[in-house]
Amino acid sequence: MLHNPLRDPDDKRLPRIAGPCSMVMFGVTGDLARKKLMPAIYDLANRGLLPPGFSLVGFARRDWEDQDFAEVVREAVRENARTEFRDEVWRSLAEGFRFVSGAFDDDAAFAQLARTVAELDEDRGTGGNHAFYLSIPPSWFATVCEQLQRSGLSDPSEGTWRRVVIEKPFGHDLPSAQELNRIVEAVFPPDSVFRIDHYLGKETVQNILAFRFANQIFEPVWNGRYVDHVQITMAEDIGIGGRAGYYDTVGAARDVIQNHLLQLLALTAMEEPLSFTADAVRSEKEKVLAAVSLGEDLDTTTARGRYSPGWQGSQKVAGYVEEEGVEADRGTETYAALRLDVRSRRWAGVPFYLRTGKRLGKRVTEIAVVFRRAPHQPFSSTATEELGANAVVIRVQPDEGVTVRFGSKVPGSQMEVRDVSMDFGYGASFTESSPEAYERLILDVLLGEPPLFPRHEEVEQSWRILDPVIEHWAARDQPPQDYPAGSWGPPAADDLVRRDGREWRLP
Amino acid sequence: MLHNPLRDPDDKRLPRIAGPCSMVMFGVTGDLARKKLMPAIYDLANRGLLPPGFSLVGFARRDWEDQDFAEVVREAVRENARTEFRDEVWRSLAEGFRFVSGAFDDDAAFAQLARTVAELDEDRGTGGNHAFYLSIPPSWFATVCEQLQRSGLSDPSEGTWRRVVIEKPFGHDLPSAQELNRIVEAVFPPDSVFRIDHYLGKETVQNILAFRFANQIFEPVWNGRYVDHVQITMAEDIGIGGRAGYYDTVGAARDVIQNHLLQLLALTAMEEPLSFTADAVRSEKEKVLAAVSLGEDLDTTTARGRYSPGWQGSQKVAGYVEEEGVEADRGTETYAALRLDVRSRRWAGVPFYLRTGKRLGKRVTEIAVVFRRAPHQPFSSTATEELGANAVVIRVQPDEGVTVRFGSKVPGSQMEVRDVSMDFGYGASFTESSPEAYERLILDVLLGEPPLFPRHEEVEQSWRILDPVIEHWAARDQPPQDYPAGSWGPPAADDLVRRDGREWRLP
Repeated sequence: MLHNPLRDPDDKRLPRIAGPCSMVMFGVTGDLARKKLMPAIYDLANRGLLPPGFSLVGFARRDWEDQDFAEVVREAVRENARTEFRDEVWRSLAEGFRFVSGAFDDDAAFAQLARTVAELDEDRGTGGNHAFYLSIPPSWFATVCEQLQRSGLSDPSEGTWRRVVIEKPFGHDLPSAQELNRIVEAVFPPDSVFRIDHYLGKETVQNILAFRFANQIFEPVWNGRYVDHVQITMAEDIGIGGRAGYYDTVGAARDVIQNHLLQLLALTAMEEPLSFTADAVRSEKEKVLAAVSLGEDLDTTTARGRYSPGWQGSQKVAGYVEEEGVEADRGTETYAALRLDVRSRRWAGVPFYLRTGKRLGKRVTEIAVVFRRAPHQPFSSTATEELGANAVVIRVQPDEGVTVRFGSKVPGSQMEVRDVSMDFGYGASFTESSPEAYERLILDVLLGEPPLFPRHEEVEQSWRILDPVIEHWAARDQPPQDYPAGSWGPPAADDLVRRDGREWRLP
Repeated sequence: MLHNPLRDPDDKRLPRIAGPCSMVMFGVTGDLARKKLMPAIYDLANRGLLPPGFSLVGFARRDWEDQDFAEVVREAVRENARTEFRDEVWRSLAEGFRFVSGAFDDDAAFAQLARTVAELDEDRGTGGNHAFYLSIPPSWFATVCEQLQRSGLSDPSEGTWRRVVIEKPFGHDLPSAQELNRIVEAVFPPDSVFRIDHYLGKETVQNILAFRFANQIFEPVWNGRYVDHVQITMAEDIGIGGRAGYYDTVGAARDVIQNHLLQLLALTAMEEPLSFTADAVRSEKEKVLAAVSLGEDLDTTTARGRYSPGWQGSQKVAGYVEEEGVEADRGTETYAALRLDVRSRRWAGVPFYLRTGKRLGKRVTEIAVVFRRAPHQPFSSTATEELGANAVVIRVQPDEGVTVRFGSKVPGSQMEVRDVSMDFGYGASFTESSPEAYERLILDVLLGEPPLFPRHEEVEQSWRILDPVIEHWAARDQPPQDYPAGSWGPPAADDLVRRDGREWRLP
């Protein structure tokens, strides 16, 4: 693996600029490429973080020339880039655009791709360093990896690198994930495989580690002696849009819990890593995921739901089974909630409640660490009757930041204590604007810096946790419980926490 | 002691309304009476917290009739009341105004006062309950207390109460404080003596106890294992105004540290009281004050200064010795700083730095609890070089609230951690507006609820701490060090903390 020789990884004052390289993108006609990947590449170029000869090769089954591809990228950038469009940046970047036309099973196209990449090394000094971004359905991963191997593209010569980027879903259960990992890692060594969970590129997600470990005052209470429970929520207000074809075979648990929510749990619950290197961070994440266990009775410690017609703001919306392309008989859930336990000294006895759903009351992702009440109150019980428990809420989106809920005296002549909030907003506190998650992640790929990408062990641990839940649901006769669009989920989800004497937070 | 029978002290839903009573005020022509006391009484009436027959008796050496006194009060209220002026409230309140003309050593005037008070019991149903507010120079306390005794006014009959309110300064050193306590408590039993430190009536000061003890997350780190040091600051931007006659014989240490700052220290450092009753709270405050010790070398653990000419904003201002009425030879300090230690298991090794001064950069009173740095940082040292220590800052004035300083990731593609703040503002968080400290304190006097008033033991402990400092300074030949008006104090104050490897916060 070649590091940028200009960059001392311990020196934050030098910007992190990728060394000579190219990126080959499979799936350039897809939504993700257009909305996120191409704009992120332009934004990185605009920030001066790409090497001068950086090249982008599109691969798809279209009859395009290089210029057609450039036009597609240009449009994507104009529509979706975060930073200002600057002609000189664009022109210089576009000089490195190439397009190779072909199907994934077309040997000749991959031979052509290999020639194109070699020419770039020759003409634009990409130095033999190439990243392959597989923005394609997972069913094609095996084919493309094999093609990359057969055409010699996966095989770096001395002192160069080849890396592969894959997007979730990383399988649909433990066996398929293992199979996928086997296929990819048969071609690329583990440290050349970058699994992108764009959630992990978000500032606030990374900030969980800074918040916990760069500070002195939170870690002493970050354990079962003080924490009552943890709630991790990813709520969407939208429905499935036109994605029934994908979503109806996947469902909420696989789509969100397996990756996003379990990763957030891992970052929240992990022990302090010895350093911020990829290996140290990922080892701690794996350790805590390995300690996660499901409740014994999955009927009471899991809940699933499916949205029925209702109101989203002032708009009447259809129920899930009315959405085009949905097969009601599949019984796919659009809401899932779990109670998990972490069997460690730090977290024994502290439930972690995870929930996600579509068509919920509000779009919000947050981690709420809810503390026990103070063991003794010197104030009278009526003085504190409006007092909830302390909570530290890490808001991941949309309004990134941290809120601490605590009790404060109500102004007036009596000692009455009520909940108030202390707030830190990312946007309000920094003049730096947050890069898009994909900017960060693509740059990390080009730099070969993997701390934010899950290893295959983490992916497999996540499926180990989730598989029994999905099997349990599949074995039952009933469909998921209905919940009206715009509400906060099915009754079973409320029962799940109430059984433990708790309530879901209203985010 | 008669409590309002309507009021269950544990029931916050019933407003705290004083039972039948009057207040006799000595010093009605003074600044404090006009700016604070009279307006507070009106505000209490306006909030419906005074009993229907409540009466206010003024006593002064003026040739006033009741109506003249009422006119003075009316003007004070119109100028300085917090709540809206309402004619019907005013008229009803003013019916209970009486004035007695006389000097403090005039027996006949006190006989007249006794008759007036008896008539109020008769005519307005004040029920034999009377509070005497001594808003007068301490040199008169003995005289007035003796007069109250001689005229029978201090002596309640069965089922009624008589209380005395005294304002700081409570003496000017330990012997004089003991003498004062002896004089007052010879006439009034200890639980009928209300020593007013208006700082203790401030919402934020009371909130220190709620913040610490109603919450779960702060108390575990509120000790020497996590706290590096504590800074308690009361800074004023103004000079002494026309108060040289008083101030020049007192100085900053006696004027502010002995009462305000040591009380703030006590509330910050005290152990959790078993309840919020007066005895429980005051016992804990006394315990912690008794554990306070001065440094061994007062030359290095104390500092004093005197403001020299300088700029206050855009205005050029005179130095202290140029102020009218100041005798430079007295060497009175306008700035004082101390390092104190609290010899307890909780605080051993944690210095408490106290400072106060006039003509400083800004008007602010705050308690900053500064934490140790995290014992280990998984991030590289350059990533955290802009990271300070965590701090919890309780802002007492002017912008009451709490700020927590902590480290957060800087947005961008690198793991860089920088200080940010989380903020809670009293004003922004509650729709209730804060009553003036005097409203709270006067109501507490009428209700006979003493938790916010220091007992004589506390006052004497404070002088025990401060006397050696003042003696040490008096024994030295030099005057206090100069510091320019508008700066943050003399060089010796900086040396005091730097010697320990610390810095004063810039509030």
